[in-house]
Amino acid sequence: MGCGAAAPTPYFLTTSQLVNIHGQLILIDCGEGTQLTLRQTKAKFQKINIILISHMHADHTMGLPGLIATMSLLGRRTSLNIWGPKELEEFVRRTWYLTGTHVDFEVKFHVNSSIGPNVVVDSESFMITSFPTKHRVPTCGFVIEEKEGVLSLKGHARKDYNLSHLDIQILKRGEDIVKKGEVIPNMFCMEKPPKCRKYAFAADTAFSPKVVEAVKGCNLLYHEATFETKDLDIAKKTLHSTSSDAARVAKDAGVNQLLIGHFSNRYRDLSQLFLEATEVFTNTSIAKENKTYLIE
Amino acid sequence: MGCGAAAPTPYFLTTSQLVNIHGQLILIDCGEGTQLTLRQTKAKFQKINIILISHMHADHTMGLPGLIATMSLLGRRTSLNIWGPKELEEFVRRTWYLTGTHVDFEVKFHVNSSIGPNVVVDSESFMITSFPTKHRVPTCGFVIEEKEGVLSLKGHARKDYNLSHLDIQILKRGEDIVKKGEVIPNMFCMEKPPKCRKYAFAADTAFSPKVVEAVKGCNLLYHEATFETKDLDIAKKTLHSTSSDAARVAKDAGVNQLLIGHFSNRYRDLSQLFLEATEVFTNTSIAKENKTYLIE
Repeated sequence: MGCGAAAPTPYFLTTSQLVNIHGQLILIDCGEGTQLTLRQTKAKFQKINIILISHMHADHTMGLPGLIATMSLLGRRTSLNIWGPKELEEFVRRTWYLTGTHVDFEVKFHVNSSIGPNVVVDSESFMITSFPTKHRVPTCGFVIEEKEGVLSLKGHARKDYNLSHLDIQILKRGEDIVKKGEVIPNMFCMEKPPKCRKYAFAADTAFSPKVVEAVKGCNLLYHEATFETKDLDIAKKTLHSTSSDAARVAKDAGVNQLLIGHFSNRYRDLSQLFLEATEVFTNTSIAKENKTYLIE
Repeated sequence: MGCGAAAPTPYFLTTSQLVNIHGQLILIDCGEGTQLTLRQTKAKFQKINIILISHMHADHTMGLPGLIATMSLLGRRTSLNIWGPKELEEFVRRTWYLTGTHVDFEVKFHVNSSIGPNVVVDSESFMITSFPTKHRVPTCGFVIEEKEGVLSLKGHARKDYNLSHLDIQILKRGEDIVKKGEVIPNMFCMEKPPKCRKYAFAADTAFSPKVVEAVKGCNLLYHEATFETKDLDIAKKTLHSTSSDAARVAKDAGVNQLLIGHFSNRYRDLSQLFLEATEVFTNTSIAKENKTYLIE
């Protein structure tokens, strides 16, 4: 929802992404105005149950107190889990306290260490891990990956084969069933799970072999690409990446596709960022705001 | 720049206004996303030297830490004066500290008491006073008024009458001058100051006789009108006004023109708010976002 660095402008908002995995909504980072984008795009933002915050910098956090306040104002009562740096809870709760904001649902803050890779969420169908990146303040990237799914019943199998609850349990274990002395092969009733998909978010960060290691084998990698190579000095000083750095990570990690974002506001034309990335890694796209990227 | 209550929506942003008085820019309140509106509308926001914050509620303050951070990021070095509740400085500085924000210019916070009327700024050409409103937390409204201006030199007078520095000093005192034995009447060279204009901002507030007293004789009064009369119960409970309340203030205070805003997000159609106000006070307008109102 935001592809710009540092401060929102008429060209780019600051970092925020909404990940939909099997209908579960996960918000990654929350720059100023994220709540407005969520409403403008008619996202079902009350269904966000997991928020991941990469680091404390204002362009990744400033929208969080207001977003949660609005969730409460609009009647939310289900709890919300947030993972982020240790200062995050103080920032959000202090802001609420000082601005007279009441939040009428449970918000659980979990401190996410940036020392090593961590399992953040381990649910039945997906897993979220975090990994340290290389930035001026403690920062984490995130990998969201599907787990190998269970066999699922084909659309009309229950009716076609008059399946009982017990039949379905047997089928889910991958076995065939016997109905009236006749064998019904498992594959007549059940579908195989789709191939597991993996998405990684790496921002903010300079080029880092640790990031390469963490995002290996991803279908889609979002990597920050704040600067062009001509501004390498500033990238080094501020611990950000050039688009060429981002592409090197994608190449070394063997990902399928690279999406670059977190563009410095000094560039109006992003073609040079794109060119420098594709010289290193062909399957690169420039992130666009309010666009949905489907991971096949 | 924002005419909505409580939370930003695709229909209305939260409270913020930019007042231009003789080229001086004054910002009143700063809801989330104000910095973005300022940039979208190409306002010269680096020229804002005075910020007035009515009260601590999030829909009036949440954009302030980010706006100032962006001013600094874009190279501002001139100081900024902010008046607001006593908690404001802690909110802003704590937010900067926790989000790793560096502000490279002087920001002076002045605590503005909501006990009685206060002179906030007393400059050569205008005066800003604050007055208490009636809300759930300590809240101030503001009156910005021109001072009676000094006589000013007509366009071509200096050349036409070959005026010296001393001549101009005499003319500015309202006296005639004598050049080569001939009297040159003051009115040939000087223009009278325009009539003093007065703008008042009253939000958030329930109907209050103290507000009536404070905004007497204004050319333009902005008064919050969060609710329709059918929602009077909620207005009373939350200490907000109906549009009819706002109109009563305008009528009792004898202002020229009323502008209503701070609309509850429950209304998509504002015609009922308008109707109920105009029944009490005819010269009422519905505030529109990104519109400039000229005070004649």
